[in-house]
Amino acid sequence: MAAPVNPPRGMRDLLPVEKAKREHALAVIRAVYRSHGFDEIEAPALEDWDRLHAGLGGDNEKLSFSVLRRGIGREQLAQAEDVAAVADLGLRYDLTVPLARFYATNQAALPTVFRAVQIGPVWRAERPQKGRYRQFVQCDIDILGEAGPIAELELIGATAAALDALGIEGASVRVNDRRILNRLLLTWGVEVESASAALITIDKLDKIGVAGVVAELGEQGVDTAGLDRAFGELATAGWDLAVDPPAWLDVEAYTDLLALKDALPEVELVFDPTLVRGMGYYTGTIFEIAHPSSTSSLGGGGRYDGMIGRFLGREVPAVGFSIGFERIIDLLPDRVGESVATALLHDADVPASVLLAAKRRVQEEGGRVRLERARKNRRAQLDALAADGFTRFATVTADGVGELRDLS
Amino acid sequence: MAAPVNPPRGMRDLLPVEKAKREHALAVIRAVYRSHGFDEIEAPALEDWDRLHAGLGGDNEKLSFSVLRRGIGREQLAQAEDVAAVADLGLRYDLTVPLARFYATNQAALPTVFRAVQIGPVWRAERPQKGRYRQFVQCDIDILGEAGPIAELELIGATAAALDALGIEGASVRVNDRRILNRLLLTWGVEVESASAALITIDKLDKIGVAGVVAELGEQGVDTAGLDRAFGELATAGWDLAVDPPAWLDVEAYTDLLALKDALPEVELVFDPTLVRGMGYYTGTIFEIAHPSSTSSLGGGGRYDGMIGRFLGREVPAVGFSIGFERIIDLLPDRVGESVATALLHDADVPASVLLAAKRRVQEEGGRVRLERARKNRRAQLDALAADGFTRFATVTADGVGELRDLS
Repeated sequence: MAAPVNPPRGMRDLLPVEKAKREHALAVIRAVYRSHGFDEIEAPALEDWDRLHAGLGGDNEKLSFSVLRRGIGREQLAQAEDVAAVADLGLRYDLTVPLARFYATNQAALPTVFRAVQIGPVWRAERPQKGRYRQFVQCDIDILGEAGPIAELELIGATAAALDALGIEGASVRVNDRRILNRLLLTWGVEVESASAALITIDKLDKIGVAGVVAELGEQGVDTAGLDRAFGELATAGWDLAVDPPAWLDVEAYTDLLALKDALPEVELVFDPTLVRGMGYYTGTIFEIAHPSSTSSLGGGGRYDGMIGRFLGREVPAVGFSIGFERIIDLLPDRVGESVATALLHDADVPASVLLAAKRRVQEEGGRVRLERARKNRRAQLDALAADGFTRFATVTADGVGELRDLS
Repeated sequence: MAAPVNPPRGMRDLLPVEKAKREHALAVIRAVYRSHGFDEIEAPALEDWDRLHAGLGGDNEKLSFSVLRRGIGREQLAQAEDVAAVADLGLRYDLTVPLARFYATNQAALPTVFRAVQIGPVWRAERPQKGRYRQFVQCDIDILGEAGPIAELELIGATAAALDALGIEGASVRVNDRRILNRLLLTWGVEVESASAALITIDKLDKIGVAGVVAELGEQGVDTAGLDRAFGELATAGWDLAVDPPAWLDVEAYTDLLALKDALPEVELVFDPTLVRGMGYYTGTIFEIAHPSSTSSLGGGGRYDGMIGRFLGREVPAVGFSIGFERIIDLLPDRVGESVATALLHDADVPASVLLAAKRRVQEEGGRVRLERARKNRRAQLDALAADGFTRFATVTADGVGELRDLS
């Protein structure tokens, strides 16, 4: 027996049922985003190595796959100071750095306010673990060039509509604003410039709990007196803080969030002043989709006004929302969107021309048609066909197609 | 002004109009192949370096992008004997080598006769030139496990139906069989084992003409006496050779081709005994789509029984047909499949909540909706919207949506 043959470590093959489910979901998402005025674009999967390592990708830069210069030989390898000397390209680890590059290249050809959809694989050399792959699909929408809150409204509205069209119910959107976090930390004596360690700690609230977070903040030099009580207050914060705002609240940012909530009555918007979102580049609103069936989020995003213009040399206001495509797929049932599918069973001696004619005739009625050699164990064959999504079958002989019967 | 920012050398960005056209075409192709009983699958874009360099990829192996092992440093680079010592993965240069690997991994979970669709990017470090890119989409169907001619019939029938559904008319399919080429070369004194150079030469007939081909064959030691006349005879060979077959004709293979022709009356099948197809792995039927608007083919394929089983350790009959997706896209008009699209123009002072409500109201009627800040030059703005595919517009004020008017 030959040795087992596998896809590369941490990567996976998509078999027919799984692939059909994913393509169906992508078609639904594309249609919703398009109807909401977003335009799909595509950048190459590879970008110049220097751009992927320009400090915009956070920790993901370290997980990047690097591509060797072509035609390189032993001598150049021997003289190389580091990877950057022998690699000129890399596989993208997200769709945001490529978007910044794409916008810098093409903005003259794009609308002043550009609503972008990007759907495609990204690669990260993460430690392989259950449910996490080194190649996975990201599905982002971004609005570039719009500083006002209509951008947030359109993004959240379109994403909620996409989840709705996929049949995913019960999702809510947690919202916060980096300005609220900044002011909160200031009241605890943490200056904005040195806030990143504290933010990383608060981001772990789900994992290590209030006690863990307070302890870590203490290690960072934060005075922890009263912090337990403060986290209790934050956990119960809702939409009723405007009348008598607590001292830690940035009222202007909070009022902006209230306006989002009022304009999106169909979305369950939850104010969560401890929501951080990992990436360092966020500057304003941040949001994350929560769902009762999943401990991790189904997606998230926020305003990141400083980044898209980095390759362009001027600031471009930007808000993005990324659907957690791989997690959403896990929530969807198999066989979504299946229609009629017919299996045509035949013996080995039926001429090819008869088989093709039979297939054609059944195809005219619509649905999928598959020819299949009849097996001795008819019951097992029909069960396998039903599991493959087929809904009916007939036998084909030299005389033509027999009666169509339901598979069940 | 900042320096120009470009995608990596030889790669391109897809802007909204181009991307919409491509996604439309892919949806059409997917639907046709699915109705014909083909199942879409997906393998990772990366494969193990050794598999990509196992001799199955022909010249493409040399054009492969190699991916550096992670965590490699100066020392390992310095000690490396060659690229294989520092690269463990590569980007796929076609979809056939990954299919062979996929089949070896997953065949227990697949039907005995497996009809596969694969659509996705491949990467080749070719010299950049007009219309040729280092990342491009391939679109393959393959039937694995079927040795009989029904495989060829289903493949050619499904591909013709896909072209038809895309609205591409006037295509014909040139067919030949490697057995016919082998016998032909034998009559010229070229043994099968040493035929590859002669086949490469005959493959250049379109480019260097009969005189060039005959001269090159002469350099390879072929007796060229009478070859000019022979090529004249080959050029006029049609479907009438069965009654009085010429000495160079492999009658069995020709009869098989005739049967294909008879079973596919809706396809214009042209017998071309000089058709070679580049890849060395073909073993039987070969075919290629010709179209009057293109000097190069719109796709092609053939039977390659020896290859799919290479990683599996046993022979698997296989036939494949690859659509030349990038060339087909060039033949399609822009804006295929567009429906109603509405632009909503507004001044800066209209509240975001009013804009969102207006967008929602118009969306309920279907089609795309885009909000856009009204510009001073209304005519130019409407022209740009029409060029972007919008069919009507209205203005939005604090009071709501004005009258919808056609854009033209």
